[in-house]
Amino acid sequence: MPALQKLKEKYIWISHFSSAFELLQWDMETHMPRKGGKWRAQILGSLSEFIQAQQTSAEMGQLLSEAEKEAESEEDRALVRVAKKEYDKFKKIPPELWGKFALETARAQRIWEDAKRESDFSIFSPQLEKVVEIVKELAERVGYEENRYDALLDFFEPGLTVKDLDNIIPKLREFLINVLEKIENSGKPKDVFLGEFDLGKQKELSKRVLEVIGYDFEAGRIDVSAHPFTITISHGDVRVTTRYDEKDLKYSFFSTVHEGGHALYEQGIPESFRGLPIGDGASMGIHESQSRFWENIVARSRPFWEFFKPILVEYFESFKDVPVDDLWRASNLVKRSLIRTESDEVTYNLHIMLRYEIEKALINDEMKVKDIPSVWNEKMKEYIGVVPEKDSEGALQDVHWAHGSFGYFPSYMMGNLYAAQIFYALRKDLDFDGAVKSGNFKSILDRLREKIHIHGKILEPKDLIKRATGEDFNIEHFMNYIKEKYSEVYRISL
Amino acid sequence: MPALQKLKEKYIWISHFSSAFELLQWDMETHMPRKGGKWRAQILGSLSEFIQAQQTSAEMGQLLSEAEKEAESEEDRALVRVAKKEYDKFKKIPPELWGKFALETARAQRIWEDAKRESDFSIFSPQLEKVVEIVKELAERVGYEENRYDALLDFFEPGLTVKDLDNIIPKLREFLINVLEKIENSGKPKDVFLGEFDLGKQKELSKRVLEVIGYDFEAGRIDVSAHPFTITISHGDVRVTTRYDEKDLKYSFFSTVHEGGHALYEQGIPESFRGLPIGDGASMGIHESQSRFWENIVARSRPFWEFFKPILVEYFESFKDVPVDDLWRASNLVKRSLIRTESDEVTYNLHIMLRYEIEKALINDEMKVKDIPSVWNEKMKEYIGVVPEKDSEGALQDVHWAHGSFGYFPSYMMGNLYAAQIFYALRKDLDFDGAVKSGNFKSILDRLREKIHIHGKILEPKDLIKRATGEDFNIEHFMNYIKEKYSEVYRISL
Repeated sequence: MPALQKLKEKYIWISHFSSAFELLQWDMETHMPRKGGKWRAQILGSLSEFIQAQQTSAEMGQLLSEAEKEAESEEDRALVRVAKKEYDKFKKIPPELWGKFALETARAQRIWEDAKRESDFSIFSPQLEKVVEIVKELAERVGYEENRYDALLDFFEPGLTVKDLDNIIPKLREFLINVLEKIENSGKPKDVFLGEFDLGKQKELSKRVLEVIGYDFEAGRIDVSAHPFTITISHGDVRVTTRYDEKDLKYSFFSTVHEGGHALYEQGIPESFRGLPIGDGASMGIHESQSRFWENIVARSRPFWEFFKPILVEYFESFKDVPVDDLWRASNLVKRSLIRTESDEVTYNLHIMLRYEIEKALINDEMKVKDIPSVWNEKMKEYIGVVPEKDSEGALQDVHWAHGSFGYFPSYMMGNLYAAQIFYALRKDLDFDGAVKSGNFKSILDRLREKIHIHGKILEPKDLIKRATGEDFNIEHFMNYIKEKYSEVYRISL
Repeated sequence: MPALQKLKEKYIWISHFSSAFELLQWDMETHMPRKGGKWRAQILGSLSEFIQAQQTSAEMGQLLSEAEKEAESEEDRALVRVAKKEYDKFKKIPPELWGKFALETARAQRIWEDAKRESDFSIFSPQLEKVVEIVKELAERVGYEENRYDALLDFFEPGLTVKDLDNIIPKLREFLINVLEKIENSGKPKDVFLGEFDLGKQKELSKRVLEVIGYDFEAGRIDVSAHPFTITISHGDVRVTTRYDEKDLKYSFFSTVHEGGHALYEQGIPESFRGLPIGDGASMGIHESQSRFWENIVARSRPFWEFFKPILVEYFESFKDVPVDDLWRASNLVKRSLIRTESDEVTYNLHIMLRYEIEKALINDEMKVKDIPSVWNEKMKEYIGVVPEKDSEGALQDVHWAHGSFGYFPSYMMGNLYAAQIFYALRKDLDFDGAVKSGNFKSILDRLREKIHIHGKILEPKDLIKRATGEDFNIEHFMNYIKEKYSEVYRISL
């Protein structure tokens, strides 16, 4: 058997264990009884170690070198390229360092929970210092060209560098701060999504909106978890979760559509790529572009509410006399919020910039962990104009650093920026508003499938965006989108 | 590290993969979206092959021989004994034969489904012949002392032989046929469990009855599946399933209690045994004794309905004026049924005997597969007095033979027999009726825990029964139980 074929079979075999791992994770967040937790952690540990060992075995290294010579099609060449990059990267990291990373981040998570509960960053600080030291060592081992932080970015957004980000951010920040000020001086729409909403009906509504946008319930399902997520168990089995608030319909609705966007991406990856290193989304940022596209660009648009209002009324009659404009405007409330996950399209990226700047400074030894809260609060004041009164609503709000996920936050921003560029490209040959207004989401999904989903991880994000939109990545699209949309929502000139 | 310790760690490590396998199975039966099926089969295949290979590796063989010399405590000696027995047995089976078994039984299952749908045994017959040939070879490879069928029995009920069964069955059969005749000549109680029962309320009732008997919902959960089952994902995570019929409350109620009985056993196995070969139930028969105990001896008793009627009325008010006696008698309706899974305590074992005799004859080349339906129908007439009009209600009703599970059926009968013996032993130092009437199920569960559950698989069934009840296995207890109970239910003399 040719090495390339053997390599593929081996990856698919390993993916069966990854599927088991994903199901164990999903179950832990959604269905597992409390007392199963202790053993579940050990089970996950054994499987994860096994999968890692299989992926970086000497046999895989050998197969990869041989397969490299055999790969001819674009797919096969991409497969070998992606696989080799991952293999080489992970081979550079000694198992002991991975072990230390797993152990100290697991500890950090528990300590972070305590610190958040007590709202005291100093509880978290010493453990976070350890994590930062390990992450710096990981970055050094993996290597980089210009900036140590680039090594971390590459885990989440292949090809993205500090240079790229530092090129984008100042302009974008100035623009967003300016928009925020103008919006604040205009009238504030009423939040019509607040009230009393039966949970059973909310659950039915969640299913309905997912069906409407094209999620295939024969290849997935929706459950409840504390933090919403999307998970691919295997081809034909892509699940989403959400959570509900009886007093706020937005809370579940937009998070459901967001996860639905991730899931549509996963459901669109070709079966022939599955189990292989190219059988994933192109990057975290591209993934986020899809969730943000459906959440913000589709479901927070005026035509969406024109289409969806009668459906909403089927579930909650109280919306019968609420004008479409009020639904649409309430979907797009902008406010100076302390919390990233509750923030709107205008302020979201400002929350990311703040985190990025802190991360970059920490990783490059330009800042100390203990100084995070003061830097955080200063930047909050400067960028968003509000300052947290306690660390739980400030530097302790996100779990990412406890997980050791430095370099992850920027991909959220990239997702927002990519989504806008994809939106304008689609609009060139599609009556987007007309399609949304008539509920023809299939015409939109078909294009996303063709431009993005069916390529899996074959292309790096930059190349994918260029091929999908016909031009290089360009943040002007996002700024145009914000201007166009929010001048309408807030009836101001931007 | 001593070999014994290494051996234990290795087993626990392998058990983490078994846990993943069990969760994949559970999910497949309860939650998996339809389109996940194709990949799920492959995932299960890879994991099962991997687990098997790990359990029978040369390394394990080596560790086992070394550990044998180190084992001192009763637990450790049992561990090595059980492990070695399994290891030696599975080592005798060539991987190709296992592969053939897996392949042909998978095929047989699909063909059985078609044959059952068409109600035509001749569709199934040629494939079942293949399965029987493979099973015979398996038995030959594994080895036996007197009867080829003993090798198969030993997979499910260690130590049980054809000699044992042939010693029990004629007497038991005559007794049961006699009871059945007498019952038939008496008045027939009304089935008060038929009516209209809201599914939501049935689900709540299922949870309630499980709670009542002592099932720990912090270490388990209940879901819906086509065929009810109990599954242990890990320590602290033992799940049951059931299914509902809107027109028949018995349908879910007793199956829930039955699975609850299995689950109480699993929840009672000590955590220190978990992941080890001794961390299971003692046998299929002992497991069935626990499910039957709670289903039949507890939940089909008069004191149970004295206690439970007010609870039942909380969910279904229509039972308010139904006398306790009617509930109790309707729980114990005896009828000449074609279907094993719908049969009562009096006829159940007759269904088993028929299957056992056919299996034994097939395995010992005393009968041909194609003759199964005619033998089946003859024996049905002789034992139960009814003859199926079609194979789907006759020789095609059970999936076991398609699974290759020859030797399994007798363990159901053994479960019924063990349960009665355990019951009489418990009654010696416990006011059973009083405990049940007052809802003090804990006093019963505590004794089952102490006598059965905490021993895991340390003892073989015969030894466990002897230790738990103070005497050798004895079918008189079951016959007494039937006489005592059914003379009261049917107000006749037995």
